[in-house]
Amino acid sequence: MTTDANQQIVIAELPTNKLGTEHFSIQTTPIPQPGAGEVLCKTLYLSLDAANRAWMQGATYRSAITAGTVMSGGVLAEVVVSNTPEFSPGDLVEADGGWQQYFVANSKVLRKRIRRDPLSHLVSVLGVTGKTAYCGLLDIGQPQAGETVVVSAAAGATGNVVGQIAKLKGARVVGIAGGEEKCDWLQAELDFDATVDYRRDDFHRGLKEACPNGIDVYFDSVGGAVLEAVLFRMNMHGRVICCGAVSQYDTGSPEPGPRGVPGLIVTKRLSLRGFIVMDYYGGLAEQAEQDLNTWVQNGNIKVVEDIIEGLDAAPEALIGLLGGQNYGKRMIRVDPTAR
Amino acid sequence: MTTDANQQIVIAELPTNKLGTEHFSIQTTPIPQPGAGEVLCKTLYLSLDAANRAWMQGATYRSAITAGTVMSGGVLAEVVVSNTPEFSPGDLVEADGGWQQYFVANSKVLRKRIRRDPLSHLVSVLGVTGKTAYCGLLDIGQPQAGETVVVSAAAGATGNVVGQIAKLKGARVVGIAGGEEKCDWLQAELDFDATVDYRRDDFHRGLKEACPNGIDVYFDSVGGAVLEAVLFRMNMHGRVICCGAVSQYDTGSPEPGPRGVPGLIVTKRLSLRGFIVMDYYGGLAEQAEQDLNTWVQNGNIKVVEDIIEGLDAAPEALIGLLGGQNYGKRMIRVDPTAR
Repeated sequence: MTTDANQQIVIAELPTNKLGTEHFSIQTTPIPQPGAGEVLCKTLYLSLDAANRAWMQGATYRSAITAGTVMSGGVLAEVVVSNTPEFSPGDLVEADGGWQQYFVANSKVLRKRIRRDPLSHLVSVLGVTGKTAYCGLLDIGQPQAGETVVVSAAAGATGNVVGQIAKLKGARVVGIAGGEEKCDWLQAELDFDATVDYRRDDFHRGLKEACPNGIDVYFDSVGGAVLEAVLFRMNMHGRVICCGAVSQYDTGSPEPGPRGVPGLIVTKRLSLRGFIVMDYYGGLAEQAEQDLNTWVQNGNIKVVEDIIEGLDAAPEALIGLLGGQNYGKRMIRVDPTAR
Repeated sequence: MTTDANQQIVIAELPTNKLGTEHFSIQTTPIPQPGAGEVLCKTLYLSLDAANRAWMQGATYRSAITAGTVMSGGVLAEVVVSNTPEFSPGDLVEADGGWQQYFVANSKVLRKRIRRDPLSHLVSVLGVTGKTAYCGLLDIGQPQAGETVVVSAAAGATGNVVGQIAKLKGARVVGIAGGEEKCDWLQAELDFDATVDYRRDDFHRGLKEACPNGIDVYFDSVGGAVLEAVLFRMNMHGRVICCGAVSQYDTGSPEPGPRGVPGLIVTKRLSLRGFIVMDYYGGLAEQAEQDLNTWVQNGNIKVVEDIIEGLDAAPEALIGLLGGQNYGKRMIRVDPTAR
């Protein structure tokens, strides 16, 4: 790869059902030149997120992704050339840089990051997913000591942090994950009080047994049948944090909503509240970065990362993530020297 | 009817599908005698509520109704004999007295009411449904001037008050009701800004046209397909007040939940919150009675009542209410002299 070449991954075709590698293509273009007020950035790490797939279904909290364009994705990048006084070469920034090695952006869409060691923490526990866990759990869920907190996609990037924060707050923490191996790992490595494998036929019974006192707070990233099962076990005045619906992303035919909506919401006086972490930028998300960093430094939170080398691995890595392959935060090291 | 006889309506058989008159039977028993600490009450008005039907489906916020017992229902009653110093003959009380002319109750389950003229207002605008409208709309919905508030079952006991309060707060108010006649009445009599007939094939288009700026607050008493349609038109940070799911009560096979749960909750950062008015007793519900009374006295709120004479009319009246017959608060005048 020459230094003046910019490797990019493009959406060749939007998926109508399951996402496959055939929906992506790789191309190489010249490194773009920044215009007045613009900044040229070099991507260090590319974040892979289930939401990437949701963006292909249509407009969400952002406009839909379209075929023929560079795939969108959050990145940690370094400023190479800046045509604006707000940024200098060497600054670390976060942006939707897309699946490419270099990108030019208006300074308005770049968020400066404080350099930390290792840099990957800025993408995982101190990145979007870590802050999502913190803000959603603490602002919406407000778990009290002794309450039961259930988190789905518990071994994933957000879920594992949710569980660890809930433990710090004195809650009983129950993780829902796919497969016995993940469940065992959550209990052995992250000290979850109990786990339930949603793929098992006896999932409902398992959930009941894992939550003998019912469920006070549910951090939901999956929606669908798991959300439905949890709603039936929620306690009075329980709080459901709606963070995502990954069970409905990689399909052309989303399921109907969970039974019990709105009946159980009324009779149990539940609240379901959606959020995305950007809502907290400039506020609680900054507190999140400070607290999470302190907890990591003190050893209160283990950082779980799944770093894959090289941009061209991104399509398979995202497909694997949607299939539940990853433990913790999956990301691509786009710049091989980044540490 | 002799003065020492207590007419009662009993659940003959629980409905497995639609409620019919065959599920009720009438009997006459002696007027019960109050024991130590107990109170004998004479029922003046019996409140009919869609929730009565939900109680037959199983445990909700109260235990389920069972066959062979007097049908449950909220009543306004007068104390006849009191064996406790907290109550005196002539006191007005509210309780789940059931579908009968007289009942004996422990003083703990009686709530004293201030006498007002006419008494029926204590069951309608100043009763459970009026306070439900006030507490749900103002505490959970928090409508701001200029926002769009949508209310379903808009011509019903709770819905008509929701709409009128929302108007007082400066919101644009859109009512969803069954049939053109109700829709016209809401606009002509209660000054709703727009209405939509949910029975029409073009309901979705009608809802869109009635809410050109989207929906900020939705007061939901129906659930099902109407809730689903509204979710798709909600604005960012919209609030859904979950008060009931009447579309799912009079059936043995409730529908799946609305599509868009939890996907739309996340992307639009919606909140859905359930409540029942008893949660506000001793707090906001007392403020509700004061404010609603003031608004009624000042002519800011019209009181819409549908009073049916005689306890034996109760089964057909409830069945009719579930079919959407009533305008405003339907109740039974059990004591023919009550005014």
